[in-house]
Amino acid sequence: MTVAVPAPEPAIPEPVMTLAELNACDVATFVAHLGTVFEHAPFVAEGAARLRPFASADALHRAMVELVAALPEADLVALLAGHPDLAGPAARGGTMTAESTREQAALSLDRLPEAETARWDALNAAYRARFGFPFILCARHYGRTAMLQVFERRLAASRAEEMAAALREIAQITRHRLAARLAGHGLADLAGRLTTHVLDTSRGRPAQGMRVALHEVTGALPCGTSDPLVEAVTDAHGQTGEPLLSGAPLRIGRYELRFHVGDYFRRTGAVAGDFAFLDVVPVVFCIDEPTGDYHVPLTVTPFAYATYRGQ
Amino acid sequence: MTVAVPAPEPAIPEPVMTLAELNACDVATFVAHLGTVFEHAPFVAEGAARLRPFASADALHRAMVELVAALPEADLVALLAGHPDLAGPAARGGTMTAESTREQAALSLDRLPEAETARWDALNAAYRARFGFPFILCARHYGRTAMLQVFERRLAASRAEEMAAALREIAQITRHRLAARLAGHGLADLAGRLTTHVLDTSRGRPAQGMRVALHEVTGALPCGTSDPLVEAVTDAHGQTGEPLLSGAPLRIGRYELRFHVGDYFRRTGAVAGDFAFLDVVPVVFCIDEPTGDYHVPLTVTPFAYATYRGQ
Amino acid sequence: MTVAVPAPEPAIPEPVMTLAELNACDVATFVAHLGTVFEHAPFVAEGAARLRPFASADALHRAMVELVAALPEADLVALLAGHPDLAGPAARGGTMTAESTREQAALSLDRLPEAETARWDALNAAYRARFGFPFILCARHYGRTAMLQVFERRLAASRAEEMAAALREIAQITRHRLAARLAGHGLADLAGRLTTHVLDTSRGRPAQGMRVALHEVTGALPCGTSDPLVEAVTDAHGQTGEPLLSGAPLRIGRYELRFHVGDYFRRTGAVAGDFAFLDVVPVVFCIDEPTGDYHVPLTVTPFAYATYRGQ
Amino acid sequence: MTVAVPAPEPAIPEPVMTLAELNACDVATFVAHLGTVFEHAPFVAEGAARLRPFASADALHRAMVELVAALPEADLVALLAGHPDLAGPAARGGTMTAESTREQAALSLDRLPEAETARWDALNAAYRARFGFPFILCARHYGRTAMLQVFERRLAASRAEEMAAALREIAQITRHRLAARLAGHGLADLAGRLTTHVLDTSRGRPAQGMRVALHEVTGALPCGTSDPLVEAVTDAHGQTGEPLLSGAPLRIGRYELRFHVGDYFRRTGAVAGDFAFLDVVPVVFCIDEPTGDYHVPLTVTPFAYATYRGQ
Repeated sequence: MTVAVPAPEPAIPEPVMTLAELNACDVATFVAHLGTVFEHAPFVAEGAARLRPFASADALHRAMVELVAALPEADLVALLAGHPDLAGPAARGGTMTAESTREQAALSLDRLPEAETARWDALNAAYRARFGFPFILCARHYGRTAMLQVFERRLAASRAEEMAAALREIAQITRHRLAARLAGHGLADLAGRLTTHVLDTSRGRPAQGMRVALHEVTGALPCGTSDPLVEAVTDAHGQTGEPLLSGAPLRIGRYELRFHVGDYFRRTGAVAGDFAFLDVVPVVFCIDEPTGDYHVPLTVTPFAYATYRGQ
Repeated sequence: MTVAVPAPEPAIPEPVMTLAELNACDVATFVAHLGTVFEHAPFVAEGAARLRPFASADALHRAMVELVAALPEADLVALLAGHPDLAGPAARGGTMTAESTREQAALSLDRLPEAETARWDALNAAYRARFGFPFILCARHYGRTAMLQVFERRLAASRAEEMAAALREIAQITRHRLAARLAGHGLADLAGRLTTHVLDTSRGRPAQGMRVALHEVTGALPCGTSDPLVEAVTDAHGQTGEPLLSGAPLRIGRYELRFHVGDYFRRTGAVAGDFAFLDVVPVVFCIDEPTGDYHVPLTVTPFAYATYRGQ
Repeated sequence: MTVAVPAPEPAIPEPVMTLAELNACDVATFVAHLGTVFEHAPFVAEGAARLRPFASADALHRAMVELVAALPEADLVALLAGHPDLAGPAARGGTMTAESTREQAALSLDRLPEAETARWDALNAAYRARFGFPFILCARHYGRTAMLQVFERRLAASRAEEMAAALREIAQITRHRLAARLAGHGLADLAGRLTTHVLDTSRGRPAQGMRVALHEVTGALPCGTSDPLVEAVTDAHGQTGEPLLSGAPLRIGRYELRFHVGDYFRRTGAVAGDFAFLDVVPVVFCIDEPTGDYHVPLTVTPFAYATYRGQ
Repeated sequence: MTVAVPAPEPAIPEPVMTLAELNACDVATFVAHLGTVFEHAPFVAEGAARLRPFASADALHRAMVELVAALPEADLVALLAGHPDLAGPAARGGTMTAESTREQAALSLDRLPEAETARWDALNAAYRARFGFPFILCARHYGRTAMLQVFERRLAASRAEEMAAALREIAQITRHRLAARLAGHGLADLAGRLTTHVLDTSRGRPAQGMRVALHEVTGALPCGTSDPLVEAVTDAHGQTGEPLLSGAPLRIGRYELRFHVGDYFRRTGAVAGDFAFLDVVPVVFCIDEPTGDYHVPLTVTPFAYATYRGQ
């Protein structure tokens, strides 16, 4: 399985601690360790320190989120205002916090082509003008195209809806940040999985040796697909060994799986010639659960196929 | 159903006659009427005139083809040499026979962009150099992309194979030309058909009101699709009223059907949100039987679909 | 296509008239012709005669049903009481009206084995005791097994629900009776249709020559199926020529289609041996719309199949 | 998962030894341990003892089978003749070897109803008369119905074919017997597996809580099914926890899986009423690889389903 290598992430400098250590340490150590989980808001960690001990990482995270949700509106807006714009001047200038830098760099939001930057700038400005705080989204959960699509839709929402949405996104952002600082955190649902499986139903057995490629759909169909995110060849079980995607949240957005069915059936002798009925079978689908388990199999003959979302 | 309108064809000037009239007329009239069926080879019609009467248009056509097949090699090569290059100087200069003009114009072979013309010129020259006669193909049976693909493959064949292939193609070309001159000819298999049908298997009924578009795939996937050849909206039977393609030979090549599944299920209330699992379902397939009956249906739920070649 | 021949129906003696004739005739003729449409209730026809002319058979039928629905409760109960028990003493004794005789005879309700008769007698008695009128059902719309299943469920309903249900059933019964007396009645939805279609998706073409049998499921699965109602062999289109069922209302109930897939694939050479994966493929389904259009196709390879309700 | 409990098998009295111990022991111990692997033919074990050491259980088994295959025909026939009839007098009288007793008892061949016994007696007699030795089959690999079906087919074969078939079956029989005497034998392919999986493709997720029953088809369809061999309810993954069948060879024959689809969809609220389109979905299929991996999944909506042989 060949995987397109993403750019390496800047390391978060803090050492990892256990929950037991965090329950036992003094307040200064606690805040030093968790003060940057909420962007420019170490007071959230200070508040949480007073509520110790926590029975689980989940309980700690919930307590922090509740502290933020309980803020008077002016303070909450100030906290929201502490977040950098997505693909904004701070991202391009390299002046964001280490965490935001890492999160935005994974999508190249700090080095977009000029035309795209202009579009983000316009959206960011419109959002701030309308709501009085920046647009906040858990960048780990989105592809860049999906992010823009959501951005435009959210611009039309009410201020109350957007404050609620910003809080939900911050809860997602900080869940990942907390997990990175907590050894053995036991936080479930931080990653998703995409798998496939190819059955040759003309022979009643797995299709072995079929090439499969996963692309992100970044523009209007049919042209807007990226280079493959992953390419794989099916094994004796019709599977790809490792999942196509795993070990991280799935990015919300549109994807295309391409199954090289024609090459497979030419090799088994089932078809011949330049214009066999099926050649490359594209399956276009959306992911909208970053921590979901997506199974997108193909059952196929030289003249028919079926696919579905399984789990 | 919206159909992309092709350029109008220049009319073939001859009046249409019946087989009975052709069986009864004098040789000069017979040759005047059918002399241009075989390109620059009125002697084929002359030969056929002597074999009258014919019981059917099919028998007449078979007799003409057999006269050509029985020619000594030098004469056969001369007959092959009478055909114009595809997308060649005669096409661009407007100096072909009326029939060839019409056949090539339908694919715009007379007005290609310069880069593409250069490619055809190179292929035509290579073919003539290798085999001693021009590359001959029934232009009504191919898309332009498929034609180039076949051209390159046939360049690698042997001379004997290519003489046989040229004869087969001439039989196809002349079958269509004869049909245009014969009232009530009864020649079967001059046209093909492409139909579709959409079933909503989550509700056990036809999917009504789903937009469907048919594209020709003219380049490498995923970008190389044309503007839609046909667009339609499914009716109460999940069908498109008229076939997507009919009334003419289907052009050999690769096609893409796009089913606008997401819009349909949003309207029925089955899905909501920006990232429903299925949105546009592309089905990419090849046609290789110009006179075939292709039925490419879709059975679909918001999370699954199947398609196949039926008839 | 072989069809199990049902017993012939006793003829309804009246001549058929047209709507125009019924609009124009005197009241006595009108009542003589339509007086038996509502069981033992010629006054419905008398009432309708005064409302002439009718623009359509539908309008006439609607008017008659509304006359009944508007009856004071005591009169309505008397009208209901005029209906014979299903499979009751009048059916066995041959003392029902010609119409009821015909309707019940088609299901052999007049000549059931003793054990079954006892069960009907018990149900009829319980129903009359509970509601004060007999159980009424449009016998043309049900199989015998389904009828018993509905009977038991309806015994648990309220009296108001059952009066409404009886009226709905009478509307169905009389619609068919009226149609039998009206030449060119134009009443839609008097019949349903069951069709099938078999596609061999390992070859991308219709499965020709496959034996298909339709059974009614009259008892507990898997044993309770009748002799085949219809047997057919698929043609070159993978279809059965005529529909499996048509020209009459479909009887509500459970059915089993058996596709003789193994014989077909042995003949095409796709499988061999005593224990091929698929042999007879049973598809068990229910019909609950007597005037519906049921299409139950099969797409099949030697190792896979799919079916669905289409239309 | 409820499993119909088969009758307990009589224990094979010998202790289990390792291959190393068998390679090292004296000949008498070797023969005492393995002398009954080949029915009434301890000389096979004696011959194998002289060929020690063996690198694997597979090598040992192969050597024993080759000793038998190399016998002069008269000796081979004598060895074949040492096998008891299936369902014959020795089985009923309890006078077979411990191994044969166990193998036949698992199918109740020692206690059949009289009519069935008569049929076996007739077949056994016909076979002996025709070939001069008893009909031999690896009883662990067959259901009773399949066994009779194969018996009748093999009666029509030639003597040479039947000697070859008998040898193949003896190789299977003795492979299992050897495995029972060899600790850590490492013999692959002694067991098969049948699994299922149910996907609700109207919702894009596993169907949880669906009842599934596996039956053996022992007679003519549709009535001839046994009590369920296994019943299970699908879990959150749409699977049955343990395989439906595993840990032993699958018995060649016909099976029926019944998926209680109607109850499932009534519970999810997708359907209601007495006559939903789908209720129990039967899938009838054959197993012909005793050591195969059979996966027979169902993808289903309230109006459609598909199944296939996977792995």
